Amino acid sequence: MAGGIGSRFWPLSKDNMPKQFLDILGTGKSFIRATFERFLPLVPAEHFIVVTNAAYKQLVLEHLPELKEDQVLCEPMRRNTAPCIAYATYHILSKSPEAAIAVTPADHLVTNTVEFARIIGCGLDYVEQNRNALMTIGIRPSRPETGYGYIEVEQESTGIVPVKNFKEKPDLETAKRFVAAGNFFWNSGIFLWSSNAIMNAFRNYLPDMAALFDKGRADFGTPNEQQFINRQFEHCENISIDYGVMERSDSRYTIAADFGWSDIGTWGSLYTHAAHDPAGNAISGRALPVDTSNSVINIEPGYQAIVEGLDHCLVALRDKSLLVCRLDDEQQIKHWVEKL
Amino acid sequence: MAGGIGSRFWPLSKDNMPKQFLDILGTGKSFIRATFERFLPLVPAEHFIVVTNAAYKQLVLEHLPELKEDQVLCEPMRRNTAPCIAYATYHILSKSPEAAIAVTPADHLVTNTVEFARIIGCGLDYVEQNRNALMTIGIRPSRPETGYGYIEVEQESTGIVPVKNFKEKPDLETAKRFVAAGNFFWNSGIFLWSSNAIMNAFRNYLPDMAALFDKGRADFGTPNEQQFINRQFEHCENISIDYGVMERSDSRYTIAADFGWSDIGTWGSLYTHAAHDPAGNAISGRALPVDTSNSVINIEPGYQAIVEGLDHCLVALRDKSLLVCRLDDEQQIKHWVEKL
Repeated sequence: MAGGIGSRFWPLSKDNMPKQFLDILGTGKSFIRATFERFLPLVPAEHFIVVTNAAYKQLVLEHLPELKEDQVLCEPMRRNTAPCIAYATYHILSKSPEAAIAVTPADHLVTNTVEFARIIGCGLDYVEQNRNALMTIGIRPSRPETGYGYIEVEQESTGIVPVKNFKEKPDLETAKRFVAAGNFFWNSGIFLWSSNAIMNAFRNYLPDMAALFDKGRADFGTPNEQQFINRQFEHCENISIDYGVMERSDSRYTIAADFGWSDIGTWGSLYTHAAHDPAGNAISGRALPVDTSNSVINIEPGYQAIVEGLDHCLVALRDKSLLVCRLDDEQQIKHWVEKL
Repeated sequence: MAGGIGSRFWPLSKDNMPKQFLDILGTGKSFIRATFERFLPLVPAEHFIVVTNAAYKQLVLEHLPELKEDQVLCEPMRRNTAPCIAYATYHILSKSPEAAIAVTPADHLVTNTVEFARIIGCGLDYVEQNRNALMTIGIRPSRPETGYGYIEVEQESTGIVPVKNFKEKPDLETAKRFVAAGNFFWNSGIFLWSSNAIMNAFRNYLPDMAALFDKGRADFGTPNEQQFINRQFEHCENISIDYGVMERSDSRYTIAADFGWSDIGTWGSLYTHAAHDPAGNAISGRALPVDTSNSVINIEPGYQAIVEGLDHCLVALRDKSLLVCRLDDEQQIKHWVEKL
């Protein structure tokens, strides 16, 4: 899934260059490239399917030159994760009715790719043998994060266990309780299932959406697929796979994982994962901090900056746009950008 | 005098684009252009002489296309105001031994050019009739500014009066006392004198410098002038006209002026003279202030900025360089730039 626009990282991410195509952490690879390489030990290149907005098709092919053009599915507009996944599922089914499928956002960070491959491998084995199982990767929480949804299981556990409940983003007190209890995981948004399991789930829990895609059944995998999608996609309900399917299912599992994961969804999470100078600043690019602490300074290559007298702030300069703000207020960025 | 490099306005001013060539206030004219136009009612274009660094000669001619190339005198290196004025004086003498001369920095602001022309006209009349007088324009102080030198006269007065003392930049208490006393003026750095008066002053108070320039007497005003300057200029003492001449003279006068003057020597003085939004911000360029007050935001055309959560700060973006700092700390800018 690579269709997001990521306005929370303005000015680094913009409509024409969303987060999945950026190398925000300075690793030398964009998020989508790193995601592709993370799955490559498990999945041959010709089995990848990228769902993105039509506007980003060329960007995807530039970042993943191993893919052929017909491996990039184009949404005509944004419609949340359930329609995105339905689109890919129907496409995959037309090629490979028995597929085991891994669904992943294209803009997350994983630091231990060996452990990642092991966990995903275990999970795929499980969903191939248990052909009704819908599996979420659950991340063992390292802090009471309020920016993630949580997965509750029956008791403190390792390995693959049934999901008891999905919990929306909690407040800090609740998050602390979750972490202390031991039977809660972060919801990574990475899913594993067989084509059979997810197809049945769409039929059971999102029957209108299934009926809509069924009308194009004969078109998927043919030259008519795009035309069908362009006509019908806008009629899909705007709903996430979590709300539409996972919360309603009675055959859902999680696998407890600990492979150094973050969705890097905010400047604050970038701050958490970046290297810091002795004053606690995360600096990228040519910048001189003076009497400045606990701040993120992200300066475009070719530019230089002096930043003095700030604490717990963000200074980001990219693509002829500058943002200076308090890190605590970053949830407002999207609003400010609209005003600007 | 247009040879300064103005590092205090980094990143707007830089070695390759010093303050006199900038339009920091957004008036549509650079400081040097506005200075030229301010004197034009009094001085025909062909009588202007600009002394600048060799590196800025083309910039001067671009900003003042009315001038011929030989009206731009080029210093091979920076040597303060006394050598700069000596160079121009010897050049002028070679063309016009009886000239009355106005000396002015090229990077000041004047808001009432009618009153300016009246005052300068009065002063030039005086120095033409009193051919030993060295005259400084004294600005009636509107606030206890600690960033300027002061001129003390015998008693509260208008018109042209003898100077009692020059005072260096005072501390705030002293500045308040000066303003309350009424017989102190800001030293504008604008001088008026006859060629006879300034030549005698160099001979009397800076005899080594006069001797040095006398060696090239035959070269001034000829094609050999530049070669002479290139060889000899570095041997001049690095001294200001204030220390070298004015403080030592017994024939010095000031004329009390009130024509809306500022040297715009700091971001703080720019803040004072710019228009403010209701939150007290002085904004230039496309910038959205959010919960930001009493700050200077100066964004290069073609760029955009969001600035949130700052008070009494400076945000300046120009020429691929960004400065964010507290306005109170701007005296350190030069130091930071060296570190960067």
